[in-house]
Amino acid sequence: MQNALQLDMCIFCKIAKKKADSYIVYENENVIAFLDINPVSKGHTLVIPKEHYENILEMPLDLAKEIHNAIKVVCEKLKVFNPDGFNIVTNMGRQAGQVIMHAHVHVIPRYKDEETEPLRFGRPISVKLDDVYRAIVKQQ
Amino acid sequence: MQNALQLDMCIFCKIAKKKADSYIVYENENVIAFLDINPVSKGHTLVIPKEHYENILEMPLDLAKEIHNAIKVVCEKLKVFNPDGFNIVTNMGRQAGQVIMHAHVHVIPRYKDEETEPLRFGRPISVKLDDVYRAIVKQQ
Repeated sequence: MQNALQLDMCIFCKIAKKKADSYIVYENENVIAFLDINPVSKGHTLVIPKEHYENILEMPLDLAKEIHNAIKVVCEKLKVFNPDGFNIVTNMGRQAGQVIMHAHVHVIPRYKDEETEPLRFGRPISVKLDDVYRAIVKQQ
Repeated sequence: MQNALQLDMCIFCKIAKKKADSYIVYENENVIAFLDINPVSKGHTLVIPKEHYENILEMPLDLAKEIHNAIKVVCEKLKVFNPDGFNIVTNMGRQAGQVIMHAHVHVIPRYKDEETEPLRFGRPISVKLDDVYRAIVKQQ
């Protein structure tokens, strides 16, 4: 369990509560999706529950269902970049690469012409998030 | 849409129907989980819907909920190996690394002492699946 102070420090809780800026791609009552600030591919988005859970296994099943639906919506929106596939990834525990201890699912569009290896986190590509964001919201 | 012949050839459909052997870790009416035959870590398991869908986004939401629950059960079972974390990954489309065109989610236990990079698929570790399987079912 996290205490109130820890939750107060959680950057994803802050984003969910609009106390920190983010490029919001999709949102409903319980779920929010926003651009990863260290994207490993163009359009790399994070889908999170607004409520704080350390990882996806701690979430109630109905919330997991909502997360799944949000992933679907996000993939649909990211089609604006004509991806050739998607990796949907969640890392649980630091050993698995989890950095922010608030449950989140990576939606990573994949492209035929990419030279990077997107599943190697921590090696962000060079892309202007402003431009990515604008391309996504423009179609709405 | 897949035609009947293609489905007949799908190895995961065969596994779900018990027409092909696999190391079954968990199963219920709609979902089955079995060891990946090219594991990238000890205990690497695949969770799939028994019915054929090309990827997880095509599944009905209630089935996605069942898959999530199965992932939870599988992670619990894999704790027999004392993992330090998990990667939960689904690849959609060949460009994203999807090889079998039947929706599946990788449950990849991670270990502090591992020297491999488990998210680089296609580089299986050397492990006896018989032993892994026995360790998992022994605790049941």
